Amino acid sequence: MVLTLSGSGPLYQQVYRATREAILSGRLRAGDRLPVSRTLARDLAVSRNIVLIAYEQLIAEGYAVGRVGAGTYVAAVVPDSMIRVPSSGRAESEAKTVAAKLSDYGERLLSAPDSDAPIDNSRPRPRYDFAYYLASASDFPGDLWRRLLARRLRTLELDYSPVQGDAGLRAEIASYLRRSRAVDCQPDQILLVNGSQQALDLVARVLLDPGDSVVLEDPHYQGAGETFRSIGARIIPIPVDNSGLQVGRLPRSGRVRLAYVTPSHQFPTGAILPLDRRLALLSWAERRKAYILEDDYDGEYRYEGRPVEAVQALDRTGRVIYAGTFSRILFPSLRMGYVVMPPALAPALSRAKWIADRHTSFLQQAALADFMREGYLDRSVRRARVRNAARRQALLTALEKHFGGAVDVRGAAAGIHVLLHFPGIPASQTNSLIARAAKAGVGVYSAAPYYLKQPNRCELILGYGAMAERDIATGIRLLAAAIR
Amino acid sequence: MVLTLSGSGPLYQQVYRATREAILSGRLRAGDRLPVSRTLARDLAVSRNIVLIAYEQLIAEGYAVGRVGAGTYVAAVVPDSMIRVPSSGRAESEAKTVAAKLSDYGERLLSAPDSDAPIDNSRPRPRYDFAYYLASASDFPGDLWRRLLARRLRTLELDYSPVQGDAGLRAEIASYLRRSRAVDCQPDQILLVNGSQQALDLVARVLLDPGDSVVLEDPHYQGAGETFRSIGARIIPIPVDNSGLQVGRLPRSGRVRLAYVTPSHQFPTGAILPLDRRLALLSWAERRKAYILEDDYDGEYRYEGRPVEAVQALDRTGRVIYAGTFSRILFPSLRMGYVVMPPALAPALSRAKWIADRHTSFLQQAALADFMREGYLDRSVRRARVRNAARRQALLTALEKHFGGAVDVRGAAAGIHVLLHFPGIPASQTNSLIARAAKAGVGVYSAAPYYLKQPNRCELILGYGAMAERDIATGIRLLAAAIR
Repeated sequence: MVLTLSGSGPLYQQVYRATREAILSGRLRAGDRLPVSRTLARDLAVSRNIVLIAYEQLIAEGYAVGRVGAGTYVAAVVPDSMIRVPSSGRAESEAKTVAAKLSDYGERLLSAPDSDAPIDNSRPRPRYDFAYYLASASDFPGDLWRRLLARRLRTLELDYSPVQGDAGLRAEIASYLRRSRAVDCQPDQILLVNGSQQALDLVARVLLDPGDSVVLEDPHYQGAGETFRSIGARIIPIPVDNSGLQVGRLPRSGRVRLAYVTPSHQFPTGAILPLDRRLALLSWAERRKAYILEDDYDGEYRYEGRPVEAVQALDRTGRVIYAGTFSRILFPSLRMGYVVMPPALAPALSRAKWIADRHTSFLQQAALADFMREGYLDRSVRRARVRNAARRQALLTALEKHFGGAVDVRGAAAGIHVLLHFPGIPASQTNSLIARAAKAGVGVYSAAPYYLKQPNRCELILGYGAMAERDIATGIRLLAAAIR
Repeated sequence: MVLTLSGSGPLYQQVYRATREAILSGRLRAGDRLPVSRTLARDLAVSRNIVLIAYEQLIAEGYAVGRVGAGTYVAAVVPDSMIRVPSSGRAESEAKTVAAKLSDYGERLLSAPDSDAPIDNSRPRPRYDFAYYLASASDFPGDLWRRLLARRLRTLELDYSPVQGDAGLRAEIASYLRRSRAVDCQPDQILLVNGSQQALDLVARVLLDPGDSVVLEDPHYQGAGETFRSIGARIIPIPVDNSGLQVGRLPRSGRVRLAYVTPSHQFPTGAILPLDRRLALLSWAERRKAYILEDDYDGEYRYEGRPVEAVQALDRTGRVIYAGTFSRILFPSLRMGYVVMPPALAPALSRAKWIADRHTSFLQQAALADFMREGYLDRSVRRARVRNAARRQALLTALEKHFGGAVDVRGAAAGIHVLLHFPGIPASQTNSLIARAAKAGVGVYSAAPYYLKQPNRCELILGYGAMAERDIATGIRLLAAAIR
């Protein structure tokens, strides 16, 4: 019998695999005697010991049986029906791509346009990148974070930790939210999640059945739309104006289960929902027995006036689920965010989190708890606010200087991005404009993918949270030159 | 008007909140003039500046309007309908617990018995704790892990990272699985998940609709049963014997979508599925067009013979989804595991992961990639194998010494737990036996919660992976004394 060694790994594994292949392909049949180890070793030019180890493994796995003093034989228990014509690696991997029958959920996942990456971060970054979600590496207190992690590693809890998150961290988050956002909450209402995307998914799963209606701002964060659509929900888009969600256009009849809103800084238009609309939204939710998912993704940054109180803080009947993230204050790849759960939803949401992944990875929770307890988060937010205010000023100054009245800047009162509207440029030219900017080394991004009903004008989203002021100024200068 | 300050936080926040409460409760009505700042400051015994800041915030949020030289007034836009009778904190939190209408998924989550914590880790640990899932703090290379994290923190990628996981880490996992478990896979088939629980949830979502049938071993890991039940799947339990799943009893008709199995070391009985049953299981899956979810939760540890090849390694038609975890080789609170996806399922599973949480937290992925690349994982596994073999020997020796023929030890050939069966003790006495052991400082755990069809005998699960040999010996001696 000829065995050919191939592939990588230790020699005994190669011998083992070749022999096993011979058995599975039927070249060696039940009851056949395997080659004498000394002979095979010579044929393959390996040591006899290698062959013996390979045979031992075949015996251990039931492919072969050893008979004392009588050699090694192919086991009788390998059913004939399983023995196959050998296939090359290529044919094998082709055979493995039979069409899969998926669940309705799986089918919906695949039928959605793959729009999760409005910004393709596998490609090299432009020199002047106004990507809206980037965190500033220069603002991130890396040394401090390293020290906190190292300290916690010394006494790391290896065991599973609580599903809702570390108790100390939840207490810090509740206190932070009460203090900075007037959010009305206790630590046992906090659910730690892997960024706001997990908040969206868990809320969607726990509240929505296929066919249920969900109100979304139009435009909105794509991940939200995709999450609700994947659950099978029916999307009711409500347009946004300069004051955010047009609450007067909320549906007055029909069963709506949820409204997903970004009142502190509407994504992506940047509008801030004023108090009367907040109250009207709450009143609507109570009448319709709907929940409100308030996504406060960058509520830390407000430059004009004080931070507006969260809708959650106005809620008296437990209709608001409040979600926040550390992506904008720390960094996105941390994957840490939180939900403030109305008490009535806490059992189901906590249980859904357990089923999803038992709990968020512990080490960085512990470091984050220390970071907050020792006052570093407050300090970071204050410093980032000052830094981002300077960046914002640089952006507004450069836009005024290079565009003047040719651009309409929206959403600059808060957050770390603005929406630019160019009245003189038709919507159809947006993509070529972006391509020209990219050629000049400037990354700017169309707002169009965030709309269900396409706007009839050229709109760009420009983030500035990760850029130096000087780069902002240069980037806008280059952008203006590219547009002209 | 009398305002009472209460609560915590800066004074200006207290003034702000008290005034806001007066507006929302209707004590101050639209158009009312707010108290003159100097007067209110005197009444409340705070500085006038405090009041001015509070008013400024009320104006910023739209509760009030300032008229130059004419004081501050309650805004006209606060709709009358929103003005409420003030409620005490207590009444408020009661109002917030209105019964929630949940999705079918949410309802199923809550209707399941809350059995996720067979071991309540909020309670103090017994001195001799045979909890099956614990990792050994003394085996964990804490200093090394700290060094790797610190190194990666210096160049940390702050931005979102790939949904399937870091490319370097996926390459390492694929190579490790090919090498150590003969798993047939490429890096692009690897999906990094937050522990095997997330693998279960994603697979269940992508493959199962409510009413679909799933085969489970009986007994089995509870988290699996609960995950499938929460999706609304119908569970078909198949009994396990000393050779694991009784494949001859798999359903021969009807649509079955998935079989969830633990062939390397059946959980919790510890049986190892022999080759003929593995082949029969594959053949069944092909005939029934079902998928196999192979959970290889502790495949690293085998003491008798070499590790058995994974079912995935025998699969020629892409029917096997292979899942593994770093919980047993590193530690559970890391929350890191992986799925080897059949190519046909890769798009849906990756998309489901994106919707679930975009990607697993990056820093520890990067550290783990280095840990594997630099050979530390192989070294850790080898060392842990030696250490666990010694622990196992200590356990078997102590059981023989103190129980002799009175106990039947199962599942000792692999993994880091055994199943004890006491022929002389009726099943009804299991809990009192466990309570007596707990009094003596020994933590042992009933296998009964893992069964759908309750066994008619006393069975205990004893993990030994986190214990010193000497503690194992003492624990078993105390257990024997407690039982007598």
